[in-house]
Amino acid sequence: MFRISILGSGKVAWNLAQALENEGHCIEEVWSRNPAHANALVDHLYAAQVQTHLDFSNSRASVFLISVTDAAVEEIARRLILPQDAIVAHTSGTLPMEVLGPASPACGVFYPLQTFSKGRRVKFDDVPFCLEATSPETFNQLHKLAASLSKKLFKMDSAKRKVLHLAAVFSCNFTNHMLRISEKILEKEGIDAQLLNPLIEETIEKSMEAGPENAQTGPAVRRDMEVVAAHIEELAASPQWAELYYLISQDIIRLHKEK
Amino acid sequence: MFRISILGSGKVAWNLAQALENEGHCIEEVWSRNPAHANALVDHLYAAQVQTHLDFSNSRASVFLISVTDAAVEEIARRLILPQDAIVAHTSGTLPMEVLGPASPACGVFYPLQTFSKGRRVKFDDVPFCLEATSPETFNQLHKLAASLSKKLFKMDSAKRKVLHLAAVFSCNFTNHMLRISEKILEKEGIDAQLLNPLIEETIEKSMEAGPENAQTGPAVRRDMEVVAAHIEELAASPQWAELYYLISQDIIRLHKEK
Repeated sequence: MFRISILGSGKVAWNLAQALENEGHCIEEVWSRNPAHANALVDHLYAAQVQTHLDFSNSRASVFLISVTDAAVEEIARRLILPQDAIVAHTSGTLPMEVLGPASPACGVFYPLQTFSKGRRVKFDDVPFCLEATSPETFNQLHKLAASLSKKLFKMDSAKRKVLHLAAVFSCNFTNHMLRISEKILEKEGIDAQLLNPLIEETIEKSMEAGPENAQTGPAVRRDMEVVAAHIEELAASPQWAELYYLISQDIIRLHKEK
Repeated sequence: MFRISILGSGKVAWNLAQALENEGHCIEEVWSRNPAHANALVDHLYAAQVQTHLDFSNSRASVFLISVTDAAVEEIARRLILPQDAIVAHTSGTLPMEVLGPASPACGVFYPLQTFSKGRRVKFDDVPFCLEATSPETFNQLHKLAASLSKKLFKMDSAKRKVLHLAAVFSCNFTNHMLRISEKILEKEGIDAQLLNPLIEETIEKSMEAGPENAQTGPAVRRDMEVVAAHIEELAASPQWAELYYLISQDIIRLHKEK
Protein backbone atom coordinates (compact mmCIF):
# COMPACT_ATOMS: atom_id res chain seq x y z
CA MET A 1 0.00 0.00 0.00
CA PHE A 2 1.30 3.40 -1.02
CA ARG A 3 0.44 6.77 0.50
CA ILE A 4 -0.06 9.08 -2.44
CA SER A 5 -0.76 12.75 -3.04
CA ILE A 6 -2.32 13.94 -6.26
CA LEU A 7 -1.56 17.28 -7.85
CA GLY A 8 -4.28 18.08 -10.32
CA SER A 9 -8.02 17.50 -10.59
CA GLY A 10 -8.55 17.00 -14.31
CA LYS A 11 -9.70 13.88 -16.11
CA VAL A 12 -6.53 11.85 -15.53
CA ALA A 13 -6.18 12.84 -11.86
CA TRP A 14 -9.89 12.14 -11.34
CA ASN A 15 -9.70 8.61 -12.72
CA LEU A 16 -6.29 7.73 -11.34
CA ALA A 17 -7.04 8.82 -7.77
CA GLN A 18 -10.19 6.72 -7.57
CA ALA A 19 -8.60 3.70 -9.23
CA LEU A 20 -5.65 3.86 -6.82
CA GLU A 21 -8.00 3.96 -3.84
CA ASN A 22 -9.92 1.02 -5.22
CA GLU A 23 -6.68 -0.95 -5.22
CA GLY A 24 -6.13 -0.19 -1.54
CA HIS A 25 -3.76 2.77 -1.69
CA CYS A 26 -4.33 5.81 0.44
CA ILE A 27 -4.75 9.22 -1.18
CA GLU A 28 -3.48 11.70 1.40
CA GLU A 29 -3.92 15.07 -0.27
CA VAL A 30 -5.29 16.57 -3.45
CA TRP A 31 -3.94 19.88 -4.64
CA SER A 32 -5.39 21.80 -7.58
CA ARG A 33 -4.83 25.31 -8.91
CA ASN A 34 -8.54 25.70 -8.34
CA PRO A 35 -9.33 24.47 -4.77
CA ALA A 36 -13.00 23.97 -5.67
CA HIS A 37 -11.91 21.35 -8.21
CA ALA A 38 -9.72 19.66 -5.61
CA ASN A 39 -12.75 19.64 -3.34
CA ALA A 40 -14.92 17.97 -5.97
CA LEU A 41 -12.37 15.18 -6.38
CA VAL A 42 -11.89 14.79 -2.61
CA ASP A 43 -15.66 14.30 -2.33
CA HIS A 44 -15.20 11.14 -4.39
CA LEU A 45 -12.39 9.82 -2.17
CA TYR A 46 -12.38 8.21 1.29
CA ALA A 47 -10.15 10.34 3.48
CA ALA A 48 -8.13 12.65 1.26
CA GLN A 49 -7.69 16.30 2.25
CA VAL A 50 -7.64 19.33 0.01
CA GLN A 51 -4.27 21.03 0.15
CA THR A 52 -4.18 24.65 -0.94
CA HIS A 53 -0.40 25.25 -1.03
CA LEU A 54 2.57 23.38 -2.50
CA ASP A 55 4.49 22.80 0.74
CA PHE A 56 4.04 19.08 1.36
CA SER A 57 6.91 18.75 3.84
CA ASN A 58 4.50 17.45 6.50
CA SER A 59 2.69 15.03 4.22
CA ARG A 60 2.65 11.30 5.02
CA ALA A 61 2.67 10.53 1.28
CA SER A 62 5.70 8.93 -0.33
CA VAL A 63 4.54 9.26 -3.95
CA PHE A 64 3.42 12.53 -5.54
CA LEU A 65 1.66 12.30 -8.88
CA ILE A 66 1.49 15.49 -10.93
CA SER A 67 -1.42 15.25 -13.30
CA VAL A 68 -2.04 18.73 -14.64
CA THR A 69 -1.94 20.36 -18.07
CA ASP A 70 1.57 20.04 -19.53
CA ALA A 71 2.24 23.77 -19.50
CA ALA A 72 1.85 23.90 -15.70
CA VAL A 73 4.06 20.97 -14.69
CA GLU A 74 7.41 22.74 -14.76
CA GLU A 75 6.32 25.58 -12.50
CA ILE A 76 4.68 23.21 -10.03
CA ALA A 77 7.86 21.12 -9.91
CA ARG A 78 9.88 24.25 -9.11
CA ARG A 79 7.57 25.36 -6.29
CA LEU A 80 6.88 21.92 -4.83
CA ILE A 81 8.34 21.14 -1.38
CA LEU A 82 8.34 17.40 -0.66
CA PRO A 83 9.12 15.21 2.34
CA GLN A 84 12.56 13.55 2.42
CA ASP A 85 12.90 10.62 -0.05
CA ALA A 86 9.56 11.26 -1.69
CA ILE A 87 9.06 10.19 -5.30
CA VAL A 88 7.52 12.63 -7.74
CA ALA A 89 6.15 11.53 -11.12
CA HIS A 90 4.08 13.16 -13.82
CA THR A 91 1.45 11.50 -16.00
CA SER A 92 2.16 13.41 -19.21
CA GLY A 93 2.63 11.71 -22.56
CA THR A 94 4.82 14.46 -23.92
CA LEU A 95 6.91 16.06 -21.17
CA PRO A 96 10.41 14.72 -20.50
CA MET A 97 11.06 13.33 -17.03
CA GLU A 98 13.69 16.01 -16.46
CA VAL A 99 11.18 18.81 -15.86
CA LEU A 100 10.63 17.27 -12.43
CA GLY A 101 14.30 17.61 -11.44
CA PRO A 102 13.84 20.64 -9.19
CA ALA A 103 11.24 18.82 -7.06
CA SER A 104 13.19 15.72 -6.04
CA PRO A 105 16.15 13.57 -7.07
CA ALA A 106 13.73 10.60 -7.17
CA CYS A 107 11.52 11.36 -10.10
CA GLY A 108 9.76 9.49 -12.85
CA VAL A 109 6.97 9.21 -15.34
CA PHE A 110 3.71 7.37 -14.77
CA TYR A 111 1.86 7.66 -18.08
CA PRO A 112 -1.39 5.73 -18.60
CA LEU A 113 -2.11 5.38 -22.33
CA GLN A 114 -5.86 5.86 -22.25
CA THR A 115 -8.58 8.47 -22.79
CA PHE A 116 -10.24 9.52 -19.54
CA SER A 117 -13.43 11.39 -18.85
CA LYS A 118 -15.10 12.28 -15.58
CA GLY A 119 -18.17 10.19 -14.95
CA ARG A 120 -16.90 7.23 -16.95
CA ARG A 121 -15.02 4.36 -15.37
CA VAL A 122 -12.08 2.88 -17.25
CA LYS A 123 -10.95 -0.72 -16.77
CA PHE A 124 -7.41 -0.02 -15.60
CA ASP A 125 -6.13 -3.59 -15.78
CA ASP A 126 -6.02 -3.25 -19.56
CA VAL A 127 -4.39 0.20 -19.69
CA PRO A 128 -0.75 0.26 -20.83
CA PHE A 129 1.42 2.18 -18.33
CA CYS A 130 4.62 3.72 -19.66
CA LEU A 131 7.13 4.09 -16.85
CA GLU A 132 10.45 5.84 -16.50
CA ALA A 133 12.53 6.86 -13.49
CA THR A 134 15.83 8.45 -12.49
CA SER A 135 17.01 5.36 -10.61
CA PRO A 136 16.26 1.62 -10.48
CA GLU A 137 14.85 2.03 -6.93
CA THR A 138 12.44 4.75 -8.02
CA PHE A 139 11.52 2.73 -11.09
CA ASN A 140 10.74 -0.29 -8.91
CA GLN A 141 8.44 1.75 -6.72
CA LEU A 142 6.54 3.20 -9.68
CA HIS A 143 6.41 -0.24 -11.28
CA LYS A 144 4.93 -1.70 -8.10
CA LEU A 145 2.35 1.07 -8.00
CA ALA A 146 1.42 0.62 -11.67
CA ALA A 147 1.30 -3.18 -11.28
CA SER A 148 -1.44 -2.76 -8.70
CA LEU A 149 -3.58 -1.14 -11.42
CA SER A 150 -2.62 -2.84 -14.67
CA LYS A 151 -0.97 -5.92 -16.13
CA LYS A 152 0.50 -3.98 -19.07
CA LEU A 153 3.64 -2.22 -17.90
CA PHE A 154 6.32 -0.79 -20.17
CA LYS A 155 9.65 0.83 -19.50
CA MET A 156 9.87 3.64 -22.00
CA ASP A 157 12.11 6.68 -22.31
CA SER A 158 10.77 10.18 -22.86
CA ALA A 159 11.53 10.27 -26.59
CA LYS A 160 9.59 7.07 -27.32
CA ARG A 161 6.75 8.06 -25.03
CA LYS A 162 6.39 11.34 -26.92
CA VAL A 163 6.02 9.44 -30.21
CA LEU A 164 3.51 7.09 -28.60
CA HIS A 165 1.50 10.05 -27.35
CA LEU A 166 1.54 11.60 -30.82
CA ALA A 167 0.26 8.34 -32.32
CA ALA A 168 -2.41 8.22 -29.61
CA VAL A 169 -3.66 11.66 -30.63
CA PHE A 170 -4.28 10.36 -34.15
CA SER A 171 -5.91 7.11 -33.09
CA CYS A 172 -7.99 8.57 -30.27
CA ASN A 173 -8.62 12.34 -30.47
CA PHE A 174 -8.59 12.59 -34.27
CA THR A 175 -10.59 9.40 -34.74
CA ASN A 176 -13.16 10.82 -32.35
CA HIS A 177 -13.17 14.08 -34.31
CA MET A 178 -13.93 12.21 -37.54
CA LEU A 179 -16.97 10.77 -35.75
CA ARG A 180 -17.88 14.27 -34.58
CA ILE A 181 -17.79 15.64 -38.13
CA SER A 182 -19.90 12.80 -39.45
CA GLU A 183 -22.42 13.33 -36.65
CA LYS A 184 -22.67 17.04 -37.49
CA ILE A 185 -23.09 16.31 -41.20
CA LEU A 186 -26.04 14.03 -40.39
CA GLU A 187 -27.55 16.40 -37.82
CA LYS A 188 -28.06 19.07 -40.46
CA GLU A 189 -30.14 16.63 -42.51
CA GLY A 190 -32.06 15.32 -39.52
CA ILE A 191 -30.57 11.84 -39.93
CA ASP A 192 -29.98 9.92 -36.68
CA ALA A 193 -26.21 9.45 -36.25
CA GLN A 194 -26.81 6.11 -34.50
CA LEU A 195 -27.39 4.72 -37.98
CA LEU A 196 -23.60 4.72 -38.34
CA ASN A 197 -22.89 2.60 -35.26
CA PRO A 198 -22.71 -0.82 -36.97
CA LEU A 199 -20.39 0.71 -39.58
CA ILE A 200 -18.16 2.27 -36.92
CA GLU A 201 -17.99 -0.96 -34.93
CA GLU A 202 -17.09 -3.03 -37.99
CA THR A 203 -14.53 -0.42 -39.12
CA ILE A 204 -12.66 -0.58 -35.84
CA GLU A 205 -12.91 -4.34 -35.40
CA LYS A 206 -11.64 -4.92 -38.94
CA SER A 207 -8.89 -2.34 -38.59
CA MET A 208 -7.59 -3.91 -35.38
CA GLU A 209 -7.78 -7.45 -36.77
CA ALA A 210 -6.53 -7.01 -40.33
CA GLY A 211 -4.53 -3.83 -39.76
CA PRO A 212 -5.68 -0.41 -41.05
CA GLU A 213 -3.70 -0.79 -44.27
CA ASN A 214 -5.67 -3.87 -45.34
CA ALA A 215 -8.94 -2.65 -43.88
CA GLN A 216 -9.25 0.53 -45.93
CA THR A 217 -12.29 0.90 -48.22
CA GLY A 218 -14.16 3.81 -49.76
CA PRO A 219 -13.88 6.21 -52.68
CA ALA A 220 -10.32 7.44 -52.10
CA VAL A 221 -8.61 4.04 -51.90
CA ARG A 222 -10.45 2.79 -55.00
CA ARG A 223 -9.69 6.14 -56.70
CA ASP A 224 -13.33 6.85 -57.41
CA MET A 225 -12.52 10.50 -58.03
CA GLU A 226 -16.05 11.36 -59.14
CA VAL A 227 -17.34 10.45 -55.69
CA VAL A 228 -14.47 12.32 -54.03
CA ALA A 229 -15.32 15.41 -56.10
CA ALA A 230 -19.06 15.07 -55.39
CA HIS A 231 -18.41 14.83 -51.63
CA ILE A 232 -16.14 17.86 -51.63
CA GLU A 233 -18.83 19.79 -53.49
CA GLU A 234 -21.41 18.63 -50.95
CA LEU A 235 -19.18 20.16 -48.25
CA ALA A 236 -19.04 23.60 -49.90
CA ALA A 237 -20.74 25.24 -46.92
CA SER A 238 -18.11 23.81 -44.53
CA PRO A 239 -14.77 24.76 -46.11
CA GLN A 240 -12.76 23.34 -43.18
CA TRP A 241 -14.31 19.92 -43.74
CA ALA A 242 -13.96 20.16 -47.51
CA GLU A 243 -10.24 20.80 -47.00
CA LEU A 244 -9.91 17.92 -44.54
CA TYR A 245 -11.81 15.64 -46.91
CA TYR A 246 -9.46 16.57 -49.74
CA LEU A 247 -6.24 16.21 -47.74
CA ILE A 248 -7.15 12.94 -46.03
CA SER A 249 -8.24 11.46 -49.37
CA GLN A 250 -4.95 12.56 -50.95
CA ASP A 251 -3.07 10.94 -48.09
CA ILE A 252 -5.03 7.68 -48.42
CA ILE A 253 -4.15 7.61 -52.13
CA ARG A 254 -0.50 8.46 -51.43
CA LEU A 255 -0.04 5.67 -48.85
CA HIS A 256 -1.87 3.20 -51.07
CA LYS A 257 0.56 3.93 -53.92
CA GLU A 258 3.54 3.27 -51.64
CA LYS A 259 2.06 -0.08 -50.66
CA MET B 1 -36.99 -16.54 -52.94
CA PHE B 2 -35.64 -14.17 -55.56
CA ARG B 3 -33.63 -15.03 -58.64
CA ILE B 4 -30.89 -12.44 -58.80
CA SER B 5 -28.07 -11.46 -61.12
CA ILE B 6 -25.08 -9.54 -59.86
CA LEU B 7 -23.17 -7.03 -61.96
CA GLY B 8 -19.81 -6.45 -60.37
CA SER B 9 -17.29 -8.51 -58.45
CA GLY B 10 -15.83 -5.99 -55.99
CA LYS B 11 -16.10 -6.02 -52.22
CA VAL B 12 -19.81 -5.16 -52.05
CA ALA B 13 -20.83 -7.60 -54.81
CA TRP B 14 -18.67 -10.28 -53.21
CA ASN B 15 -20.31 -9.98 -49.79
CA LEU B 16 -23.83 -9.32 -51.01
CA ALA B 17 -23.94 -12.30 -53.42
CA GLN B 18 -22.88 -14.76 -50.74
CA ALA B 19 -25.18 -13.29 -48.10
CA LEU B 20 -28.14 -13.46 -50.49
CA GLU B 21 -27.41 -17.11 -51.23
CA ASN B 22 -27.17 -17.84 -47.54
CA GLU B 23 -30.69 -16.48 -47.16
CA GLY B 24 -31.99 -18.86 -49.79
CA HIS B 25 -32.01 -16.67 -52.88
CA CYS B 26 -30.62 -17.92 -56.16
CA ILE B 27 -27.79 -16.07 -57.87
CA GLU B 28 -28.25 -16.77 -61.58
CA GLU B 29 -25.41 -14.87 -63.23
CA VAL B 30 -22.40 -12.79 -62.30
CA TRP B 31 -21.07 -10.26 -64.78
CA SER B 32 -17.88 -8.32 -64.30
CA ARG B 33 -15.82 -6.09 -66.58
CA ASN B 34 -13.06 -8.58 -65.86
CA PRO B 35 -14.45 -12.12 -66.42
CA ALA B 36 -11.69 -13.62 -64.24
CA HIS B 37 -13.07 -11.64 -61.31
CA ALA B 38 -16.59 -12.86 -62.07
CA ASN B 39 -15.17 -16.37 -62.11
CA ALA B 40 -13.58 -15.95 -58.70
CA LEU B 41 -16.90 -14.86 -57.22
CA VAL B 42 -18.82 -17.63 -58.97
CA ASP B 43 -16.42 -20.12 -57.40
CA HIS B 44 -17.81 -19.02 -54.03
CA LEU B 45 -21.44 -19.47 -55.12
CA TYR B 46 -23.62 -22.57 -55.61
CA ALA B 47 -24.86 -22.50 -59.19
CA ALA B 48 -24.22 -19.05 -60.60
CA GLN B 49 -22.83 -18.67 -64.11
CA VAL B 50 -20.35 -16.17 -65.39
CA GLN B 51 -21.92 -13.93 -68.00
CA THR B 52 -19.54 -12.12 -70.32
CA HIS B 53 -21.98 -9.76 -72.10
CA LEU B 54 -24.70 -7.38 -70.95
CA ASP B 55 -27.61 -8.97 -72.81
CA PHE B 56 -29.61 -10.63 -70.04
CA SER B 57 -32.83 -11.04 -72.08
CA ASN B 58 -32.74 -14.82 -71.54
CA SER B 59 -31.95 -14.63 -67.82
CA ARG B 60 -34.31 -16.20 -65.28
CA ALA B 61 -33.43 -13.46 -62.78
CA SER B 62 -36.00 -10.85 -61.79
CA VAL B 63 -33.66 -8.60 -59.81
CA PHE B 64 -30.39 -7.19 -61.18
CA LEU B 65 -28.03 -5.62 -58.69
CA ILE B 66 -25.33 -3.33 -60.10
CA SER B 67 -22.47 -3.17 -57.66
CA VAL B 68 -19.55 -1.62 -59.52
CA THR B 69 -17.46 1.51 -59.10
CA ASP B 70 -19.73 4.58 -59.36
CA ALA B 71 -18.12 5.86 -62.55
CA ALA B 72 -19.12 2.69 -64.43
CA VAL B 73 -22.79 2.44 -63.41
CA GLU B 74 -24.23 4.83 -65.97
CA GLU B 75 -22.62 3.14 -68.95
CA ILE B 76 -23.66 -0.32 -67.77
CA ALA B 77 -27.23 0.90 -67.32
CA ARG B 78 -27.22 2.18 -70.89
CA ARG B 79 -25.90 -1.07 -72.35
CA LEU B 80 -27.88 -3.46 -70.15
CA ILE B 81 -30.64 -5.52 -71.80
CA LEU B 82 -33.02 -7.00 -69.25
CA PRO B 83 -35.94 -9.44 -69.31
CA GLN B 84 -39.44 -7.96 -69.27
CA ASP B 85 -40.48 -6.54 -65.86
CA ALA B 86 -37.03 -7.03 -64.32
CA ILE B 87 -35.99 -4.74 -61.47
CA VAL B 88 -32.59 -3.10 -61.60
CA ALA B 89 -30.98 -1.49 -58.55
CA HIS B 90 -27.53 -0.15 -57.74
CA THR B 91 -25.75 -0.34 -54.38
CA SER B 92 -24.02 3.05 -54.52
CA GLY B 93 -24.14 5.53 -51.67
CA THR B 94 -23.71 8.52 -53.92
CA LEU B 95 -25.35 7.94 -57.31
CA PRO B 96 -28.95 9.07 -57.86
CA MET B 97 -31.46 6.39 -58.75
CA GLU B 98 -32.10 8.10 -62.09
CA VAL B 99 -28.86 6.88 -63.68
CA LEU B 100 -30.57 3.50 -64.00
CA GLY B 101 -33.45 4.91 -66.08
CA PRO B 102 -32.18 3.61 -69.45
CA ALA B 103 -32.06 0.01 -68.16
CA SER B 104 -35.64 -0.44 -66.93
CA PRO B 105 -38.67 1.52 -65.77
CA ALA B 106 -38.54 -0.51 -62.54
CA CYS B 107 -35.41 0.72 -60.85
CA GLY B 108 -34.19 1.43 -57.39
CA VAL B 109 -31.38 1.72 -54.88
CA PHE B 110 -30.22 -1.04 -52.57
CA TYR B 111 -27.48 0.57 -50.47
CA PRO B 112 -25.98 -1.33 -47.53
CA LEU B 113 -24.30 1.10 -45.12
CA GLN B 114 -21.29 -0.97 -44.18
CA THR B 115 -17.58 -1.46 -44.98
CA PHE B 116 -16.94 -4.70 -46.85
CA SER B 117 -13.75 -6.60 -47.55
CA LYS B 118 -13.20 -9.88 -49.28
CA GLY B 119 -12.34 -12.64 -46.87
CA ARG B 120 -14.24 -11.06 -43.99
CA ARG B 121 -17.83 -11.95 -43.20
CA VAL B 122 -20.17 -9.16 -42.13
CA LYS B 123 -23.23 -9.77 -39.94
CA PHE B 124 -25.86 -8.51 -42.36
CA ASP B 125 -28.77 -8.52 -39.93
CA ASP B 126 -27.30 -5.39 -38.33
CA VAL B 127 -26.49 -3.54 -41.57
CA PRO B 128 -28.76 -0.57 -42.34
CA PHE B 129 -30.16 -0.82 -45.87
CA CYS B 130 -31.20 2.43 -47.57
CA LEU B 131 -33.85 1.76 -50.17
CA GLU B 132 -35.46 3.79 -52.91
CA ALA B 133 -37.49 2.86 -55.97
CA THR B 134 -39.40 4.33 -58.90
CA SER B 135 -42.73 2.77 -57.85
CA PRO B 136 -44.32 1.34 -54.70
CA GLU B 137 -44.33 -2.14 -56.32
CA THR B 138 -40.61 -2.02 -57.04
CA PHE B 139 -39.97 -0.62 -53.57
CA ASN B 140 -41.89 -3.51 -52.02
CA GLN B 141 -39.82 -6.06 -53.91
CA LEU B 142 -36.53 -4.45 -52.87
CA HIS B 143 -37.81 -4.10 -49.32
CA LYS B 144 -38.69 -7.79 -49.25
CA LEU B 145 -35.23 -8.67 -50.55
CA ALA B 146 -33.46 -6.42 -48.01
CA ALA B 147 -35.68 -7.73 -45.19
CA SER B 148 -34.32 -11.21 -45.85
CA LEU B 149 -30.84 -9.89 -44.97
CA SER B 150 -31.35 -7.22 -42.33
CA LYS B 151 -33.80 -5.89 -39.78
CA LYS B 152 -32.72 -2.28 -40.34
CA LEU B 153 -34.46 -0.95 -43.44
CA PHE B 154 -34.82 2.69 -44.37
CA LYS B 155 -36.61 4.45 -47.18
CA MET B 156 -34.27 7.23 -48.19
CA ASP B 157 -34.12 9.50 -51.23
CA SER B 158 -30.93 10.01 -53.23
CA ALA B 159 -30.10 13.40 -51.69
CA LYS B 160 -30.22 12.10 -48.12
CA ARG B 161 -28.37 8.92 -49.03
CA LYS B 162 -25.56 11.00 -50.53
CA VAL B 163 -25.18 12.90 -47.25
CA LEU B 164 -25.23 9.64 -45.31
CA HIS B 165 -22.51 8.24 -47.54
CA LEU B 166 -20.41 11.37 -47.04
CA ALA B 167 -20.78 11.02 -43.26
CA ALA B 168 -19.84 7.35 -43.57
CA VAL B 169 -16.60 8.28 -45.33
CA PHE B 170 -15.62 10.37 -42.30
CA SER B 171 -16.64 7.82 -39.69
CA CYS B 172 -15.27 4.79 -41.52
CA ASN B 173 -12.60 5.50 -44.15
CA PHE B 174 -11.11 8.57 -42.46
CA THR B 175 -11.27 7.02 -38.99
CA ASN B 176 -9.41 4.03 -40.39
CA HIS B 177 -6.86 6.36 -41.96
CA MET B 178 -6.19 8.02 -38.60
CA LEU B 179 -5.41 4.53 -37.27
CA ARG B 180 -3.17 3.95 -40.27
CA ILE B 181 -1.18 7.12 -39.62
CA SER B 182 -0.74 6.28 -35.94
CA GLU B 183 0.42 2.77 -36.87
CA LYS B 184 3.00 4.19 -39.27
CA ILE B 185 4.23 6.69 -36.69
CA LEU B 186 4.83 3.84 -34.24
CA GLU B 187 6.38 1.53 -36.87
CA LYS B 188 9.21 4.00 -37.44
CA GLU B 189 10.10 3.81 -33.74
CA GLY B 190 9.71 0.06 -33.54
CA ILE B 191 6.78 0.36 -31.12
CA ASP B 192 4.09 -2.33 -31.46
CA ALA B 193 0.88 -0.64 -32.66
CA GLN B 194 -1.21 -3.17 -30.71
CA LEU B 195 -0.31 -1.11 -27.66
CA LEU B 196 -2.99 1.33 -28.83
CA ASN B 197 -5.83 -1.21 -28.97
CA PRO B 198 -7.30 -0.60 -25.49
CA LEU B 199 -7.20 3.14 -26.22
CA ILE B 200 -8.93 2.71 -29.57
CA GLU B 201 -11.62 0.44 -28.08
CA GLU B 202 -12.35 2.85 -25.25
CA THR B 203 -12.35 5.83 -27.64
CA ILE B 204 -15.02 4.29 -29.85
CA GLU B 205 -17.11 2.87 -27.02
CA LYS B 206 -17.12 6.24 -25.24
CA SER B 207 -17.82 8.14 -28.44
CA MET B 208 -20.83 5.98 -29.28
CA GLU B 209 -22.20 6.09 -25.73
CA ALA B 210 -21.59 9.71 -24.73
CA GLY B 211 -21.46 11.19 -28.24
CA PRO B 212 -18.21 12.37 -29.86
CA GLU B 213 -18.75 15.93 -28.67
CA ASN B 214 -18.64 14.92 -25.01
CA ALA B 215 -16.04 12.21 -25.51
CA GLN B 216 -13.28 14.43 -26.88
CA THR B 217 -10.01 14.59 -24.91
CA GLY B 218 -6.40 15.45 -25.75
CA PRO B 219 -4.21 18.49 -26.27
CA ALA B 220 -6.37 20.35 -28.82
CA VAL B 221 -9.62 20.34 -26.86
CA ARG B 222 -7.87 21.42 -23.67
CA ARG B 223 -5.90 24.01 -25.69
CA ASP B 224 -2.56 22.68 -24.59
CA MET B 225 -0.86 24.52 -27.43
CA GLU B 226 2.64 23.60 -26.28
CA VAL B 227 1.84 19.93 -26.85
CA VAL B 228 0.18 20.70 -30.18
CA ALA B 229 3.32 22.61 -31.26
CA ALA B 230 5.63 19.83 -30.01
CA HIS B 231 3.66 17.21 -31.94
CA ILE B 232 3.71 19.22 -35.15
CA GLU B 233 7.46 19.64 -34.76
CA GLU B 234 7.80 15.88 -34.21
CA LEU B 235 6.05 15.40 -37.58
CA ALA B 236 8.50 17.61 -39.48
CA ALA B 237 9.63 14.69 -41.66
CA SER B 238 6.00 13.97 -42.69
CA PRO B 239 4.64 17.33 -43.85
CA GLN B 240 1.29 15.82 -44.92
CA TRP B 241 0.69 14.55 -41.40
CA ALA B 242 1.92 17.77 -39.81
CA GLU B 243 -0.64 19.65 -41.90
CA LEU B 244 -3.41 17.21 -41.01
CA TYR B 245 -2.46 17.44 -37.33
CA TYR B 246 -2.65 21.22 -37.49
CA LEU B 247 -5.96 21.38 -39.38
CA ILE B 248 -7.76 18.72 -37.33
CA SER B 249 -6.59 20.36 -34.09
CA GLN B 250 -7.83 23.74 -35.35
CA ASP B 251 -11.17 22.16 -36.19
CA ILE B 252 -11.45 20.52 -32.76
CA ILE B 253 -10.81 23.92 -31.15
CA ARG B 254 -13.29 25.66 -33.47
CA LEU B 255 -16.13 23.20 -32.74
CA HIS B 256 -15.38 23.31 -29.03
CA LYS B 257 -15.75 27.11 -29.05
CA GLU B 258 -19.15 26.86 -30.74
CA LYS B 259 -20.30 24.41 -28.07
